[in-house]
Amino acid sequence: MTTSPRTPAPAPTPPPTLLVLDAEPPPRLGRLTGRARIEHADAATLAERLPHADVLLVWDFASHAVREAWPGGGPRPRWVHTASAGVDHLMCPELAESDTVVTNARGVFDRPIAEYVAALVLAMAKDLPTTLRLQGERTWRHRESTRVAGTRACVVGSGPIGRAIASTLEALGITTALAGRTARPGVHGPEDLDRLLAGADWVVAAAPLTDDTRGMFDARRFALLRPSARFVNVGRGQLVVEDDLVEALAARRIAGAALDVLSHEPLSPDSALWEVPGLIVSPHMSGDTIGWRDELGAQFVELFESWAAGGPLANVVDKKRGYVPGH
Amino acid sequence: MTTSPRTPAPAPTPPPTLLVLDAEPPPRLGRLTGRARIEHADAATLAERLPHADVLLVWDFASHAVREAWPGGGPRPRWVHTASAGVDHLMCPELAESDTVVTNARGVFDRPIAEYVAALVLAMAKDLPTTLRLQGERTWRHRESTRVAGTRACVVGSGPIGRAIASTLEALGITTALAGRTARPGVHGPEDLDRLLAGADWVVAAAPLTDDTRGMFDARRFALLRPSARFVNVGRGQLVVEDDLVEALAARRIAGAALDVLSHEPLSPDSALWEVPGLIVSPHMSGDTIGWRDELGAQFVELFESWAAGGPLANVVDKKRGYVPGH
Repeated sequence: MTTSPRTPAPAPTPPPTLLVLDAEPPPRLGRLTGRARIEHADAATLAERLPHADVLLVWDFASHAVREAWPGGGPRPRWVHTASAGVDHLMCPELAESDTVVTNARGVFDRPIAEYVAALVLAMAKDLPTTLRLQGERTWRHRESTRVAGTRACVVGSGPIGRAIASTLEALGITTALAGRTARPGVHGPEDLDRLLAGADWVVAAAPLTDDTRGMFDARRFALLRPSARFVNVGRGQLVVEDDLVEALAARRIAGAALDVLSHEPLSPDSALWEVPGLIVSPHMSGDTIGWRDELGAQFVELFESWAAGGPLANVVDKKRGYVPGH
Repeated sequence: MTTSPRTPAPAPTPPPTLLVLDAEPPPRLGRLTGRARIEHADAATLAERLPHADVLLVWDFASHAVREAWPGGGPRPRWVHTASAGVDHLMCPELAESDTVVTNARGVFDRPIAEYVAALVLAMAKDLPTTLRLQGERTWRHRESTRVAGTRACVVGSGPIGRAIASTLEALGITTALAGRTARPGVHGPEDLDRLLAGADWVVAAAPLTDDTRGMFDARRFALLRPSARFVNVGRGQLVVEDDLVEALAARRIAGAALDVLSHEPLSPDSALWEVPGLIVSPHMSGDTIGWRDELGAQFVELFESWAAGGPLANVVDKKRGYVPGH
């Protein structure tokens, strides 16, 4: 069926305008054909198009363009969805204070990130980086490694990702404590954090980046850890004062670390972090398993269909706190 | 208390002679002081001392000296214990046919090896070797990785080590089938093996080395695997026809492999195996976590105490089959 542009459209309600922030169209949006007018924007065109959009899909979750382009009190999308767990890259005071609803990709990354953390924990316990280095040197050097069963972990961040990490580590026999913003059954509050860090063999950062969590892993907290402890960050780079971590590793105040997220991404080829002994650096890939883009697209379509039908939106972010409040 | 060597000893029963095959004394044997006359042998002196020993402790489990020194039908130890799970390094027809009892270190390595396999599986799923290589090149290159939950594994070897591997993989959400020498509840027999291999994302070799298992992973079996499958060997190097594995990797008939055990150990610096793309080589360390020598020593002392008191010996190897028959 084709419709001449000169024939007046009979539609009583024009479909909402869905603006997608990304260079490439997300998968699965074809299902919305006819139900949304889909437009695309990049960082350069976002400010111009944002006032005319009903919905903004932040598909390029590495972009900070939303913060810069958000139209203050003027016309703006009623709903913003980000294809990420964190919302720190798009939140700004004007968006936080507006009546625009923000949703996130809660749920998609939980299990993949949990597996990634397990991979890092086991790789460090079994000294796999040394094994691979020695293999490159054609050197057979037997070493003793560590058992993870019976060790203790503290996972900082009690949302779905933190909980998935905790249950995966528990499945490996690691006694795991969850620390969150407020104490509740199964979750320790901030008052317990330093004590938990002091007793942990593994410390995993999986918290959202907020004013409360920015820089929380600093020299003081690294000094609390055991010399045998290892630190893993799969949350946001800025949870960590990276210079303090480097210093803690250099002074052997902790035994090792792995950063999948960095303060500045992509990490510059000039960064000293690439070559810190005992530090594994990976390119923000912990949650991104094959098919993840399809899952994110399908999740957005599902949310859109509920929203377009006037139903409730899932995964609504508390914009002041910076995450989806959970149980 | 000191006893002059010229004072006749009153002991009605002289303590048994325990011969230890190793360059260094094992830990924990101090507990046997006064209850055993402990002697040491190396490969050069073993043949001379073996006929006078009541018990042989094969502490150097990499040595093949027992096979060469075993005194045929002459005087010989009544009991041989090896501080290893496998007994392939010491078995010979004369020992198999004698009334000498052979025991092994069943139990000590189960959980450590299971963790090591989980580390390799997760490292391959998350492409950790590439991450570490790119880190060395100061290169940030995001990649998608694989989820292990929902994949399928086939563990070949249904003893305690194979079972521990299976339960650890299951805890990670991997549907795992155990294949053994004979079908029984929870264990598939040889008739199912090829079908299981064809459906597996992960194939783990954890079988004892026997006439039945030597070279079982050959070109024919590698051809059964999926192109996406990865192969892990933590059993014995000679379970695998290494040239066939190299060929399967080169032809991309399988996606990756990890060998913790090799046909010839230590692997020579000249070996081509060090540099096969997609192959992780580690130095027979999967079961050796900190404290393992203490555990092995304590396990032997416990067996010795039971034996010296006339009690039953645990971990008795079926010498014809080459392993401890289980349930």
